[in-house]
Amino acid sequence: MDETEREAGRQLMRRCDQLARFSETPEHLTRRFLTEPYRAALDQVAAWMRGAGMEPHSDAAGNLIGRYEGQQPDKPVLLLGSHIDTVVGAGRYDGMLGVLAAIACVERMQATGYRPQHPVEVIVFGDEEGARFGVAMIGSRAFTGTLPTEWLDKTDASGMSLACALRAYGLAPDRLGAARRDPATLLAYLELHIEQGTRLEQAGLPVAAVTRISAVKRARLRLTGALGHAGTVAMSERRDALTGMAEVVLAVEALARRGACIATVGNVTAKPGAANVIAGHAEALLDIRAPENAALEAALAELTTTGQAIATRRGLSFTVETFYHAPSAAFAPGLVRLAQQALGPRGAAAPVLISAAGHDAAMLAPLVPSVMLFARCRGGISHAPEEEITAEDAAAAITAFSTLVDLVDRAGPAATV
Amino acid sequence: MDETEREAGRQLMRRCDQLARFSETPEHLTRRFLTEPYRAALDQVAAWMRGAGMEPHSDAAGNLIGRYEGQQPDKPVLLLGSHIDTVVGAGRYDGMLGVLAAIACVERMQATGYRPQHPVEVIVFGDEEGARFGVAMIGSRAFTGTLPTEWLDKTDASGMSLACALRAYGLAPDRLGAARRDPATLLAYLELHIEQGTRLEQAGLPVAAVTRISAVKRARLRLTGALGHAGTVAMSERRDALTGMAEVVLAVEALARRGACIATVGNVTAKPGAANVIAGHAEALLDIRAPENAALEAALAELTTTGQAIATRRGLSFTVETFYHAPSAAFAPGLVRLAQQALGPRGAAAPVLISAAGHDAAMLAPLVPSVMLFARCRGGISHAPEEEITAEDAAAAITAFSTLVDLVDRAGPAATV
Repeated sequence: MDETEREAGRQLMRRCDQLARFSETPEHLTRRFLTEPYRAALDQVAAWMRGAGMEPHSDAAGNLIGRYEGQQPDKPVLLLGSHIDTVVGAGRYDGMLGVLAAIACVERMQATGYRPQHPVEVIVFGDEEGARFGVAMIGSRAFTGTLPTEWLDKTDASGMSLACALRAYGLAPDRLGAARRDPATLLAYLELHIEQGTRLEQAGLPVAAVTRISAVKRARLRLTGALGHAGTVAMSERRDALTGMAEVVLAVEALARRGACIATVGNVTAKPGAANVIAGHAEALLDIRAPENAALEAALAELTTTGQAIATRRGLSFTVETFYHAPSAAFAPGLVRLAQQALGPRGAAAPVLISAAGHDAAMLAPLVPSVMLFARCRGGISHAPEEEITAEDAAAAITAFSTLVDLVDRAGPAATV
Repeated sequence: MDETEREAGRQLMRRCDQLARFSETPEHLTRRFLTEPYRAALDQVAAWMRGAGMEPHSDAAGNLIGRYEGQQPDKPVLLLGSHIDTVVGAGRYDGMLGVLAAIACVERMQATGYRPQHPVEVIVFGDEEGARFGVAMIGSRAFTGTLPTEWLDKTDASGMSLACALRAYGLAPDRLGAARRDPATLLAYLELHIEQGTRLEQAGLPVAAVTRISAVKRARLRLTGALGHAGTVAMSERRDALTGMAEVVLAVEALARRGACIATVGNVTAKPGAANVIAGHAEALLDIRAPENAALEAALAELTTTGQAIATRRGLSFTVETFYHAPSAAFAPGLVRLAQQALGPRGAAAPVLISAAGHDAAMLAPLVPSVMLFARCRGGISHAPEEEITAEDAAAAITAFSTLVDLVDRAGPAATV
């Protein structure tokens, strides 16, 4: 790695620090879609785009797009991107790394006056995290024309709808359809992101290619029994929904530990919920993920059977209600090969990663050949102020991402299959 | 059983129906201490007391007391009582049965012009349930001089303090101490109550004697681990506080099923509590009861050890914080014998019950010789609109309670040891 590459890494770290100052709250980083700090951060990103020779504009959904012209302006566009919205109490790299690395790639071309074969566009998608309106990937859904129009009525914690927030931001909610980009105009979508896991740390490598994004389902698990007096109902006569749910929670964990899926119960509630009353009703929030849709369905089916067996044994009734479903997204095999190639000589040793977290690339992949690179982050920690990467890893990630952009640009449509 | 006794049972059922109309809400019975429906119900009870030849008055804590003079007015008082406040969504017999049966006893004496040796007083204790201010047995604690003065600052859901509510009701909170009755002025305290369990149903008997009230502790169990992304943190690397708590909940159940105690976890909360975030913190509300204090302490100690072992194995930290403690209360053996005798010929077959629910008698027992009778209730259901007793059982309960009053009155202090 030469000094220019090292400096690009350090510059990216400084820019992440700078963007972290645009926050809704002073004590930690929170920057949700269409808030004033979000607009200010986007203005800063637009300024960096201009510095790299791009003329940025906002699309109808609030996505910011900067274009760096290629040798042949009518060729399909090589799209690079990620997001700069954050969760509440966020880290400074989730999303921002990908946007700033894409700009750094363009800066590298500009520095040598290099013109790629294809036009390169850098896109900053709005609301990937879903931290404001309870629904995620608003920007990339609008861009791919897959945003359900009823989502315009989704409201934030203050009761403001997405439609209203778009209007307040200066956008026209009834023109949201105009944000859709015809996939035929795009060569490929490339995204760099922090890993949010520890496989790269374990492998001792800074960057790796990602082959697919796992399927995710979220469901409400409900058990109904009979409430009763905590003192007077004999243990043998209880139909306690909460002890039943405790068994279900451990069954979820056991299933995932056997490797069938990744599964989490993030919350349990009991009714009536008093210390001295046996719970007649319990509800759990389940998040279940697997690399393939079929594996996810099999795991959920097994869990349903197990839950029903627990319920039957305890005299309870059990239901599973899925309220969120993101199918798995496979990246283009040709692009995955180029991504591995872009890692350089050490790339052969790199694991091919599967993303268990959702990303904008999951929205693009079904319509546009896509691939992701993951960069190592300390302890796999994300969505927390402790999220951390090193300047060396940032530099290595920019280099790998630049190389990937170059490889895809040179290979053209044939390599994106 | 003769027709007079049967009619007493039916009258008690009618009176319970009548009292059930005094409710804060029309759809179910809710009548908390010092509310207007509470005052109206107490006025009705006072009217029945007057009809039975008693002149009722309210003490400084809002307890209603009616006196039926004995042959020797300076002898210690035979005190009969229970409560008429209710939980939210209550049944119509929990508390009311005991108050109305005590009045029925006096009516029986009045009908024949009978004068007992000792004066008989019927007391309606205020706020046994603790449904309004989060603390229970306010009336019987004031009567025994064991009400912590800081409880005057306890507030209800609307933010009104007990002191303020007493004042609004026409009572002087600073004179609460005057409600204390010198135990030396009392011969014994007798209370009839619904069983809230199913042992009488199983034994096929309407009434039985109670030998003691279990010790109760309530505690917050807390587990702390590390929050994390539900998709990206490997199952083997998790320090999930909620799966740990699920194991603790099942350990509580297993301990109680082995017979060491009665134990209930009525609520579990997780933080941050989102579907896609591994819980870093979980809290459970534990209610644990055992007939003897030592058994309760042993069970809680075992549970603490088990919880710590679960926490250690999972990389979590575990704490137990007791926030409520009612020691066990033993009834006077002499009174328990008389109570069994009062059941008549079938009494020899009756089980001697232990109450796992708290009662006003638990407050009286350490200071005044006390005993309780329990009446059969359908399915052991209480604290619910489905709470049910039969008119025949009500009649049998009144007869047994009257007999007990008579036996204690005749035996005097010697029998109360």
